[in-house]
Amino acid sequence: MKLLELYARKKHDITKIEDELERSIRSDHALLNEASLHLLKAGGKRIRPVFTLLSGEFGNYDIETLKLVAVPLELIHMASLVHDDVIDDATMRRGQLTVKSKWDNRIAMYTGDYIFAKALHVAAELGNPELHKILSRAIVQMSIGEMEQIRLFFDTEQSVRDYMLRIRRKTALLIAISCQLGAIAAKADPYVSNRLYNYGYNVGMAFQIRDDVLDLIGSEKETGKPAGNDIRQGNITLPVLYALQDPFRQEAVSSEIARIRTEEGAGDVSRFLALIRESEGIDRAEALASRYIDKAIRALDRLPDIKAKKSLQEIAYFVGKRSH
Amino acid sequence: MKLLELYARKKHDITKIEDELERSIRSDHALLNEASLHLLKAGGKRIRPVFTLLSGEFGNYDIETLKLVAVPLELIHMASLVHDDVIDDATMRRGQLTVKSKWDNRIAMYTGDYIFAKALHVAAELGNPELHKILSRAIVQMSIGEMEQIRLFFDTEQSVRDYMLRIRRKTALLIAISCQLGAIAAKADPYVSNRLYNYGYNVGMAFQIRDDVLDLIGSEKETGKPAGNDIRQGNITLPVLYALQDPFRQEAVSSEIARIRTEEGAGDVSRFLALIRESEGIDRAEALASRYIDKAIRALDRLPDIKAKKSLQEIAYFVGKRSH
Repeated sequence: MKLLELYARKKHDITKIEDELERSIRSDHALLNEASLHLLKAGGKRIRPVFTLLSGEFGNYDIETLKLVAVPLELIHMASLVHDDVIDDATMRRGQLTVKSKWDNRIAMYTGDYIFAKALHVAAELGNPELHKILSRAIVQMSIGEMEQIRLFFDTEQSVRDYMLRIRRKTALLIAISCQLGAIAAKADPYVSNRLYNYGYNVGMAFQIRDDVLDLIGSEKETGKPAGNDIRQGNITLPVLYALQDPFRQEAVSSEIARIRTEEGAGDVSRFLALIRESEGIDRAEALASRYIDKAIRALDRLPDIKAKKSLQEIAYFVGKRSH
Repeated sequence: MKLLELYARKKHDITKIEDELERSIRSDHALLNEASLHLLKAGGKRIRPVFTLLSGEFGNYDIETLKLVAVPLELIHMASLVHDDVIDDATMRRGQLTVKSKWDNRIAMYTGDYIFAKALHVAAELGNPELHKILSRAIVQMSIGEMEQIRLFFDTEQSVRDYMLRIRRKTALLIAISCQLGAIAAKADPYVSNRLYNYGYNVGMAFQIRDDVLDLIGSEKETGKPAGNDIRQGNITLPVLYALQDPFRQEAVSSEIARIRTEEGAGDVSRFLALIRESEGIDRAEALASRYIDKAIRALDRLPDIKAKKSLQEIAYFVGKRSH
C-alpha cells in the first residue's frame, strides 16, 4: 500500500522517464524498434529509476538531469535481461534448437547491444565524466557476473562466497549506483551519496536472495515463471548451497542436480524442489536477506528525515517481507 | 613496403597501445582473461589505432591522450568481432550444434559485452563528453548495421543502397571516427577533423567492398577463410547484387542462392562463385571501391603536407590495390 503511495507521489516524474525511455530506443530500424519497444512495454517496476529519483531528493532535485541518469540505468538493466534471454532460450530448448530459435537469439544479442549503446548515448548527454566512470565500471562487473554464473552452472562445489560475489556483480552493484548516481547528479554531499550507495548495495543483495528463494518456493502464478527455473538452467542459488551443507541431505540434493543436468533442464524438478523446501536452506537464506535489509536501513540512519528517506525505508521493508 | 615503413615509424607508439589494450582487458576472472587475451593475441592490423595516431599528428600529438582514444576504438572493433562470431558459428555448424558449441556462444556473447564495457571504461578516463557522444553514436549505428545484415540474409531483393547503408554502419563509421577522434583528441582544427572523418569514411567503404570482393575471389590461403564464406552465412554482397542486376544471370544466381540457403550453408558454393566471377559484378565493385579511394585521397588535399598525410595516402592506395 505504502509503495503504491510512493509511485503515486512520483507518478509525474516516472512518466517523464517512461517517455524518455521510449524516445531513447526509438529507431528507424523497424525490427529493432519492434524488439526494443516490446521489451519496454513489457514493463517492470522501474525500480532502478525510482531509486535514482528518491536519491536525487537528497540534493537539488531536477528531473531533467535525473532522467538522464535514470534512463541509462534502466536501459542497462533491460539490455542485460535481453542477453540473459539468449542464454535461457538456448538452455530451455536444448536438443531442439530450431533455425527459428537461433534467428531469435541473434536478434536478441544485437538488440541487447543496441540498447546498451543507447544507454551510453543518453549518459553522454550528461557530459559528466565521473558518472561515466561509475557506470562503465558497473557494466564491466555485470558482464563478469554473467560469465561467473555460466561458469558455475551445475557446479555443486561452489561456495557461498562464489554466490555472494556473483549476485553482487549481477544485481547489487547496479542498484547501488542507481542510488549513488541520483545523489551525485543532484549534487548531494559525498557523504550522502556514499550512504545511499551502501543502502542500494544491501537492498540489492537482499532483493536477489529473495528472488532466488521465490524461484524455489513461489508458484508460477506468483512469479510469472515456473518454480525451479534456476536449477533447470543450472543456476545454483543460496538455499541450495545451504542444503548442500547439510550432511544428511547433501547426497540426495547432489544426485538430483546431476540428474536434472543430464536431462538437460527439460526434466522434472519437483523432487529437487521438495528436497530444498524440506531443508533449512530457505530459512537460512531468508535470514541472510533480512540481515542485508537491516544493514540497508541502518545506512539511511544519519541522512536527513525527508520524504525520500521514508520511501527508501519502505522499499527495503517491502523487499525484506517474507512470503511464507 | 611503404606500409611496413609506416608501422616501423610508429612502432614505439603502437607498442604502447598494445600494452594498454592488454592492460585494459586484464581481469581477475580466469575464463574472461583467457578469452579476451586469446582474441588480443590473435592480433590484427590495429588499423583503427593507426588511423587515430596518424590523425593525431595533425594536432598536438600526445600518445598518452591518443592511446585513451585508440584503445576503446580497437576494443569496440574486437567486441563486435566476438559477437559476429556468435552468429557465424551458429550458421557454420548448423544442424550439428553441440552443447559445447552453445556453451562457447554464451561465453562469446558475454566476452563481447565485457570488452564493450572495458572500451567505455577506458574512454571514460578521458573525461571528454564530446568524444563520448561520437563514440556512443557510432556503436548505436554499428548494432543497427549488424541487425540489418541479419535481416537481409539471403534476401536477393535488397538494393545496392541497402548494402551501402549496411557497410557504412558496420565498417565505415568506426574508421571515420578513428580518424576524427584522433584529431579531436589532439585539439586539431575542426576543419581538419572533419576532413579526416571524410577520409576515414571513404577508406572504410572501399575497405569493406574490397573485403567482400576478396571473399568471392580470394583463396583460403590468401584471406584466412574459405572463399564464399559470406554467401554460406547468407550475406549478399555488392558483386552479387551487381550480378543479380544482369538479366542474363539473374535467374541462375538467384536459384543458386536459394539452393545454398536450403542446404543451410553447409553446401557446395563453387557454382555460385563461378557465376559471380564470370559476371561483371567483381569489376563493377572494384571500380566503386576505387572511386571511394579517390574521394578519400581528395579529402586530404587541403591538409598540411606532414608525414602523416603521406602515410594516410599510402594506406588508401594499399586498400585500393586490386588483387587480380
